[in-house]
Amino acid sequence: MKAEIITIGDEILIGQIIDTNSSWLGQELSKLGIAVVHRTSVSDNRKAIVDALNAAKQRADIIIMTGGLGPTKDDITKHTLAEYFGSELTLNQEVLDWVTKIFRMRKLPMIDTNRNQALVPSNCEVLFNKTGTAPGMWFDIDGKIFISMPGVPFEMKSIFETHCIPKLQKRFELPVIIHRTILTCNIGESFLAKKIEQLENDLPPHIKLAYLPSVGMVRLRFSGSHTHYATLKNEIDVIIEHLYEIVGEYIYGEENDTLEKNIGLLLKGKNKTVSTAESCTGGYIAHLITSVPGSSAYYHGSIICYANDVKINELGVSPEVLNTVGAVSEACVLQMAQGVRAKLKTDYAIATSGIAGPDGGTAEKPVGTVWIAVSGPSQTIAQQFNMGDNRERTIQRSAIQGLDMLRKMLLAE
Amino acid sequence: MKAEIITIGDEILIGQIIDTNSSWLGQELSKLGIAVVHRTSVSDNRKAIVDALNAAKQRADIIIMTGGLGPTKDDITKHTLAEYFGSELTLNQEVLDWVTKIFRMRKLPMIDTNRNQALVPSNCEVLFNKTGTAPGMWFDIDGKIFISMPGVPFEMKSIFETHCIPKLQKRFELPVIIHRTILTCNIGESFLAKKIEQLENDLPPHIKLAYLPSVGMVRLRFSGSHTHYATLKNEIDVIIEHLYEIVGEYIYGEENDTLEKNIGLLLKGKNKTVSTAESCTGGYIAHLITSVPGSSAYYHGSIICYANDVKINELGVSPEVLNTVGAVSEACVLQMAQGVRAKLKTDYAIATSGIAGPDGGTAEKPVGTVWIAVSGPSQTIAQQFNMGDNRERTIQRSAIQGLDMLRKMLLAE
Repeated sequence: MKAEIITIGDEILIGQIIDTNSSWLGQELSKLGIAVVHRTSVSDNRKAIVDALNAAKQRADIIIMTGGLGPTKDDITKHTLAEYFGSELTLNQEVLDWVTKIFRMRKLPMIDTNRNQALVPSNCEVLFNKTGTAPGMWFDIDGKIFISMPGVPFEMKSIFETHCIPKLQKRFELPVIIHRTILTCNIGESFLAKKIEQLENDLPPHIKLAYLPSVGMVRLRFSGSHTHYATLKNEIDVIIEHLYEIVGEYIYGEENDTLEKNIGLLLKGKNKTVSTAESCTGGYIAHLITSVPGSSAYYHGSIICYANDVKINELGVSPEVLNTVGAVSEACVLQMAQGVRAKLKTDYAIATSGIAGPDGGTAEKPVGTVWIAVSGPSQTIAQQFNMGDNRERTIQRSAIQGLDMLRKMLLAE
Repeated sequence: MKAEIITIGDEILIGQIIDTNSSWLGQELSKLGIAVVHRTSVSDNRKAIVDALNAAKQRADIIIMTGGLGPTKDDITKHTLAEYFGSELTLNQEVLDWVTKIFRMRKLPMIDTNRNQALVPSNCEVLFNKTGTAPGMWFDIDGKIFISMPGVPFEMKSIFETHCIPKLQKRFELPVIIHRTILTCNIGESFLAKKIEQLENDLPPHIKLAYLPSVGMVRLRFSGSHTHYATLKNEIDVIIEHLYEIVGEYIYGEENDTLEKNIGLLLKGKNKTVSTAESCTGGYIAHLITSVPGSSAYYHGSIICYANDVKINELGVSPEVLNTVGAVSEACVLQMAQGVRAKLKTDYAIATSGIAGPDGGTAEKPVGTVWIAVSGPSQTIAQQFNMGDNRERTIQRSAIQGLDMLRKMLLAE
């Protein structure tokens, strides 16, 4: 079964708002086993909407529109749909009663534009909107389903969940679709692809693999389509087991996991604590760790030591180290990690020192040079990296590396 | 001049990633005076791409594609484009040299998939990608411009800014468009709108105002279109002067300023330094400050004190305060700000302590309660806020408040 999503509104085209509705609908439709084959955004005008509908019904069985239904819009969508489906706008009493009730509750006067929200094309089925005033509409015409919903995200979601999901499941015989996403870090997309080339070549035609890269990370998404759930699930499980055998060392989680969330789980499971000493990452590791709810259970804090004096006075880095090999060195990050672990009384610690740029690079230590140390009860290790010449990404990559080094130490101990 | 944006990739259709590229491009094209008339997202397959190109060139003069250019095999865009434009993939030596250089710099081996990134259709003009390995491509065919760029947002942005904007301005006669963006913080959109209602009503029809809200901030973008640059510029200048008179206290900058960048400029101008002591913001203020290049000139560091022991031992917060009024209190943040300022030897300091949630709230101090202090050479002040019940937004709003309180103190002294 194929679907197309059409969003209506100039505010999307000029980038004034980001279209999160389509992403959400894409996820929900995929879960239902409905393939989204196309997405379109068009202007608030009759011709654009009609052209989009004509093109969509050539490609898809289910056409889902969002936007263009609010009270201040020109109501162009509703008139266009009535005309497109050869019907007329008529008053829906249930919707009118609901709109009237909302205005009474909010003690607001009701004007004609509000009353007009109860007008719907006579050949649609109303999808009642319990979170707002603009109703959704369902048209079942020539074997295709056309759905129109308001663009306000929570209203759209509520209508889709309450009405559309059960109605689509009833109306169509839907296949089984399974998605599994495996999260890797600190290996480039092309190296990962090389390592799993054989696995990828051996995939059956009904299971697809997609690489989804972001800074320091690549997500691997396996998507399978089949008639039988258990068979497909088993097939994908076997593939992913094999994937772990090949590149398990780079895998830090699955689906919506994050490195910082998984480290939190590991620390809580072992009843251990962590602190950080950050120079070049400037608090970004601390921010990631503390963005996880409940992190105060295992995170004591950080000494962010942008100034060398802070490294010496707060972390016990020796002035000789700074004077000889400098702050961006193995010796310095080792002392930083051990220093903060002792001072903040934690079981583990991460330390970073590097040249995030754009200035400060030398021939010996170019911009992007970063030393990272992780200290635990049984060892302190340090590693050097080159993170490239972009400040923001150097900070992000260093944070991911530091967290991943901690993760590996936690797993090994 | 009309443009259409085509994004390529199943990850967008199934909603695994949110399409922020199209929004960004929509904004940039609008600024250039180019109307985005349509947006399309299609699957990674030849027919879908060809159909989208055929439809787009009926509607638009400029067709911009993003996505589908990475090194791995789920990318077929380049082959499809070569075929579509009746040309073949040939090796571009400049791109190959660049890719080779990147791999040498990062001390990584180069494999065939990396080398293939240097293959481009022979009739395109290469848009050199200085932030990655996949080049952009520019086709000027039958009076229409087709642009293909990688989907990684920072690579796409860099290519568009460096190459596409100047090339589009040269290739087409674009109208005079002036945008001015004024940045406000710590005032809600509807309150701001109420305050500047009269100014907005008095705008001439060729100057539009858009409200662009984000967490803790609202950007006001004035966009004018005219035939004569100087007249338009003067008109907008007068309006903005008036805007400063009405809501100047909420304005922290213009265009691409950030609070942290402007604070950096103020500190450098006064030759002063700052440190931070962060509990509920967990390093996010430090991260914002250190994301500014050159911040080591005025930023010494931070004590992130998630644990109460760290507040006591490192910042000198008195145990009595913690035992009586607690960590989320005026007394605590005042001691934190003064403590970190003394310890890290800076002229100014910001301190935060609050309940970011979702747990830890009480009837007296519900989730979202945050105390923020700013300490300077002549005074230390503290203020209480309620930042709402979302952890991420509470962290962000608290950071913005803390930075803005520092900015105001710096301006006043």
